[in-house]
Amino acid sequence: MKFIHTSDWHLGRQLHGESLLEQQRLALAQIGALAVEHQVDALIIAGDIYDRAIPPASAVTLLSEFLDELIEKHKIQVLITSGNHDSAERLGFAAKQMRSSGLHMVGSLSLPLTPIKLHGKQSDAWFYPISYAEPAVVRHALADDTINSHELAMKALLEQVTQHDSENLPKVVVAHCFLDGSTESESERPLSVGGADRIAPALFAPFDYVALGHLHGPQYRGVEHVRYSGSPLKYSFSEATQKKSVTLVELSTGKAPTIKLLPINTGRDVRIIEGNLADLLVRAKDDPHADDYLMVRLSDTHALLDPMGKLRSAYPNVLHLERTGLMAQQQQRDIGRDRIKKGELEMFSDFFEQVAGEPLSAAQQQHLHHLLDELHQGEDA
Amino acid sequence: MKFIHTSDWHLGRQLHGESLLEQQRLALAQIGALAVEHQVDALIIAGDIYDRAIPPASAVTLLSEFLDELIEKHKIQVLITSGNHDSAERLGFAAKQMRSSGLHMVGSLSLPLTPIKLHGKQSDAWFYPISYAEPAVVRHALADDTINSHELAMKALLEQVTQHDSENLPKVVVAHCFLDGSTESESERPLSVGGADRIAPALFAPFDYVALGHLHGPQYRGVEHVRYSGSPLKYSFSEATQKKSVTLVELSTGKAPTIKLLPINTGRDVRIIEGNLADLLVRAKDDPHADDYLMVRLSDTHALLDPMGKLRSAYPNVLHLERTGLMAQQQQRDIGRDRIKKGELEMFSDFFEQVAGEPLSAAQQQHLHHLLDELHQGEDA
Repeated sequence: MKFIHTSDWHLGRQLHGESLLEQQRLALAQIGALAVEHQVDALIIAGDIYDRAIPPASAVTLLSEFLDELIEKHKIQVLITSGNHDSAERLGFAAKQMRSSGLHMVGSLSLPLTPIKLHGKQSDAWFYPISYAEPAVVRHALADDTINSHELAMKALLEQVTQHDSENLPKVVVAHCFLDGSTESESERPLSVGGADRIAPALFAPFDYVALGHLHGPQYRGVEHVRYSGSPLKYSFSEATQKKSVTLVELSTGKAPTIKLLPINTGRDVRIIEGNLADLLVRAKDDPHADDYLMVRLSDTHALLDPMGKLRSAYPNVLHLERTGLMAQQQQRDIGRDRIKKGELEMFSDFFEQVAGEPLSAAQQQHLHHLLDELHQGEDA
Repeated sequence: MKFIHTSDWHLGRQLHGESLLEQQRLALAQIGALAVEHQVDALIIAGDIYDRAIPPASAVTLLSEFLDELIEKHKIQVLITSGNHDSAERLGFAAKQMRSSGLHMVGSLSLPLTPIKLHGKQSDAWFYPISYAEPAVVRHALADDTINSHELAMKALLEQVTQHDSENLPKVVVAHCFLDGSTESESERPLSVGGADRIAPALFAPFDYVALGHLHGPQYRGVEHVRYSGSPLKYSFSEATQKKSVTLVELSTGKAPTIKLLPINTGRDVRIIEGNLADLLVRAKDDPHADDYLMVRLSDTHALLDPMGKLRSAYPNVLHLERTGLMAQQQQRDIGRDRIKKGELEMFSDFFEQVAGEPLSAAQQQHLHHLLDELHQGEDA
């Protein structure tokens, strides 16, 4: 059984107001090509296929076309579980009518859990998909009042399949949860506040592979085969240094799984650049990836006229600007009245110079100084 | 080929703010039972399966469960086209992965049109599903600038399938449109303003049966086999006198179709009742269907205290109240200042009597009269 494990596609997501649909289309095309190239038997998507309960119609169409390509054209099975961003009910629509085609959509939690046997060219394997569910939902479904945490909910669900007779075939859990000790990114919506969403990795020990979703950085906890694939795209600047990939997994009875990360690269990266405005504008000329999605940290300590406009003329996809230089300066400053006045004078001088192309004359400076004094006297009155 | 033709389920719809989901669940159960009882080969739903582009999750679950029952349990094929209320993109998600199960979801217009051969226990038939599409969409898809009306759009689409070789099997069109001369209800959203949505029934002449959706009253135009099934439930008080049904159709090569209406009755009707408040409250005691959804037309010509509250104590599902008596009286009235004053006096007298349980005394009437005079003098000042 050879499959690609991925998760957190968040189709329909925006990055700082910018649609990522075309990047997602490119990422899906790469994942499809990798699936075909490596002749996998299945693609496993561990939740958050969409970014929200009601995704835009364009995201629905994108996924539908991808499934047509993979399933109808290349005969690769697809298993999708719902994550905390998805609407489990909507994702599960007509799931039974899709099964015979090789598409397994696992929507709302339905108990007892139904193991799915996927056919492989070399050997088959059993999959135990567990849709994301709040502890309260599991508590109600199992009529067990002691289930008051994500860990107890997962433990109860796993007990349903641990004893399943897999006919000596490999056993794979697919789940969407937060393993204790894992590394978060800013783009994940917390499952619960105050750490109540943490699950001990040891719960998953009895399985041959555990395909997890929720965290956007690829990682494993405890043992190498209990792992997050991470998202195929960077969905926040906190992921700027992550290397995005999907996980190629090969399972054979009685052997440790073979695991390999296959990089995903859509050509437009999400990066953070730092420097002063003038230097950055010069550097843009030699930057072959000036159209990446950028957060810019400007070190300039004086006022700047329309820095975003100037940056975007060189880097068209600047999405966020931080004035780190000004912030640092501000932190050092006393906040006395005189300092504030001086601040205003300096700021206006900088502004004037940028607009007029020459500094304030001595007379102009004198005039401005009087004006500011008058204004502040007015405040005191 | 034996099938049930229905349309305009509008799952998720409300009637005057009241959820109809439980009534829809009952209607679907009846339709399912009729399909099984009559051993049909297929169920054909001609658009507006949902009430809006993004239906509530409960409506999605209801339809999904219905499909499981009909398709998985009873092996009855289902064909659903999208109507003007549906999101064609969302309805068409993963349609190719459902086909082999016998579920045919026809979402966005895809050209050339794809005929679908449905298998029948006695004989097969060809179906030509045509999703609802604006003329502009058809004009663009066919790159034909002359298509500027619903009729020309339908004509162009039908031309794609008229010549289709049906191997001498019956040919059935499924469409969602407005046939010229048909009878509307208030609950249909017009496809276009000013009559530009009208299509000549003669266009459909070459087909053995035409399963139409959009209009909520069952009817046919021109020939008996070009027909609307109507909606299975009453979705406005303008449909109060309609008899709701689904249409049972049997087709054999070379014979006229056998058509029969199968009534749908969920037990809770949508009715209009008329009379004065006191009489209606008495009549409620002998009305076994007092929990029907009601529009009440009150003939009382005087002011009433909380008539809706009183009516709902006897008829729990009054959704709309019309004061026809007051309206008629108002129309007859001159609108002179003295008449208005008299009106206020009368109204307050009625109100007082209902609250206090006895009429105004002569002294109270005199006092009120003076008060009203003073108020109106104030207006003139």
